[in-house]
Amino acid sequence: MQNLQGEEGLTNGGANAEGALLFYSEFDDPGEWRDVLKSELPSLDFRVYPEVGNPEDVRYVLAWKPFPGFFEPFPNLSLVVNLGAGIDSLAGRADLPDVPIARLSDDGMIALMKSYVLFSVIRYARDIPDFEQAKRLSEWRYIHPRPLHRIKVGVLGLGHLGSAVASALANLGFSVHGWDHVEKSIAGVECHFGEARDDFLSKVEILVNMLPLTTDTKGLIDASVFGALPKGAKFINASRGPVVDEPALVEALRSGQIGGATLDVFWTEPLPADHPFWQMENVLITPHLASITVPETAARDVAENIRRVRNGHEPLHLVNPSRGY
Amino acid sequence: MQNLQGEEGLTNGGANAEGALLFYSEFDDPGEWRDVLKSELPSLDFRVYPEVGNPEDVRYVLAWKPFPGFFEPFPNLSLVVNLGAGIDSLAGRADLPDVPIARLSDDGMIALMKSYVLFSVIRYARDIPDFEQAKRLSEWRYIHPRPLHRIKVGVLGLGHLGSAVASALANLGFSVHGWDHVEKSIAGVECHFGEARDDFLSKVEILVNMLPLTTDTKGLIDASVFGALPKGAKFINASRGPVVDEPALVEALRSGQIGGATLDVFWTEPLPADHPFWQMENVLITPHLASITVPETAARDVAENIRRVRNGHEPLHLVNPSRGY
Repeated sequence: MQNLQGEEGLTNGGANAEGALLFYSEFDDPGEWRDVLKSELPSLDFRVYPEVGNPEDVRYVLAWKPFPGFFEPFPNLSLVVNLGAGIDSLAGRADLPDVPIARLSDDGMIALMKSYVLFSVIRYARDIPDFEQAKRLSEWRYIHPRPLHRIKVGVLGLGHLGSAVASALANLGFSVHGWDHVEKSIAGVECHFGEARDDFLSKVEILVNMLPLTTDTKGLIDASVFGALPKGAKFINASRGPVVDEPALVEALRSGQIGGATLDVFWTEPLPADHPFWQMENVLITPHLASITVPETAARDVAENIRRVRNGHEPLHLVNPSRGY
Repeated sequence: MQNLQGEEGLTNGGANAEGALLFYSEFDDPGEWRDVLKSELPSLDFRVYPEVGNPEDVRYVLAWKPFPGFFEPFPNLSLVVNLGAGIDSLAGRADLPDVPIARLSDDGMIALMKSYVLFSVIRYARDIPDFEQAKRLSEWRYIHPRPLHRIKVGVLGLGHLGSAVASALANLGFSVHGWDHVEKSIAGVECHFGEARDDFLSKVEILVNMLPLTTDTKGLIDASVFGALPKGAKFINASRGPVVDEPALVEALRSGQIGGATLDVFWTEPLPADHPFWQMENVLITPHLASITVPETAARDVAENIRRVRNGHEPLHLVNPSRGY
């Protein structure tokens, strides 16, 4: 994906020689993005779908879950930025333009993800579900805390967000094991890879899923993964629902093989009101917001990528939608 | 408290020329302490109260909440180590020996405290109580997350543990304000002191109490403090119950001036079953375990202090029980 042919479009004319950016999202506030991008690039021609104007002006697209055929009208594209970290809504599509595609990299998004996973892991490590239950009984139930370095936390997936999360857990004092399909090295984290997965799983009592959703990871966290964990292990899913075999998780929670789960993502979102997770006392549900893009911090990165494309440099944080990350 | 006169006791005889350590606690496991201290100081004569042996042998005391008169039988003391961070159970006592008194400094304890406060702050920052409530209604209730740098957290008390907590919150990305009665400087934390307290309070939406219990701080967090916070602010108490005017907190929670509280410590512990906190939905109760001493990590520090006293050096982490910290 290092094709910069869109560059030539810079001189192809249109209302603004620098080209326009087209914004598309059903979830994000275009006004907030306009303000923060304009403060970085004051001359930017910022347009919000469906107010496209002349399609030939559109040089940059900043979009979240664009509909099929979205890109077709724009002959002069030179950069597509996915308005989020996970690019599964672009993966495998036949209608993507042949231009560089970048994901957002965003300190604010990383901070949110770290906060979500730290919260979820500490909640189990510090026995909070027991105290919540004791409270309902007006019961002072003392449980002697375990030192953090004795608590083994596993992080599945050591990409951009996964490695940030693993480092944050290690810095706090947990004993952190990481796994990825390829070898990685993270200070303070014992990294495993490839075939070593079951060995890795047998060591962790709190497992965090940070894997991207790809054709390889779909359904990867299944009964065999839950079965390889120590009985009563806790599970946290902060990536994508379909990475998990959801009926297998329901079964593992019912049998006690999994002692508790914190779930931000699901096969179907919003999670249907009759889904068994709602009735399980040992499941904490959040509505897909472990991490979101923060325009204030992400805009710096988008502006930098537009500057790079204008100057003929390769954009940062390129992704490969056919690979899925 | 730099009196090292007990040093001379080193040559006063007894069964072991190096002197014995006497352990006293109704809460901690002496066997665990014996093992970890012996691995640091193999020749240490470790005795557990009431098996004192010859009182003249006792050179070091490692104790939690020793009863009145505890120290009287021991003429050759040269060091007392308080088996915890808060020394309020020693403060103001007339029966303390005139020897150096140290508190524990313990990486494991600091990690536990950081984990407790990070958990409690993130829980509010990420709207978890709303999602807990939504779950009971099988309701997918989306609340757009706020970037962490927009969330103002206040830390009252910037001592040993308070400053560690303030740094951890700032490192994660929160906007952190700290207050102490004297001026402090902590990287990434906007520090206020003394008279600036109400100005500080008006800026914070999540307030963490890390003040030690002293005659000056008893009842310090009262209706005027709660009233100076923005309406609906959250409150976390991880230090000592009596620093807070508990009836004023009950009233502030009932009126909504305080929107939620996470409380680890109370006027009376265990918290009586008829206390109003138990019935308040917006209160999370933990049984005084935000931070505990971790023998594995603390023993290194105790052993180092015994070595220092034996060699005529000033012990580390000295405290002043008449001041209270």
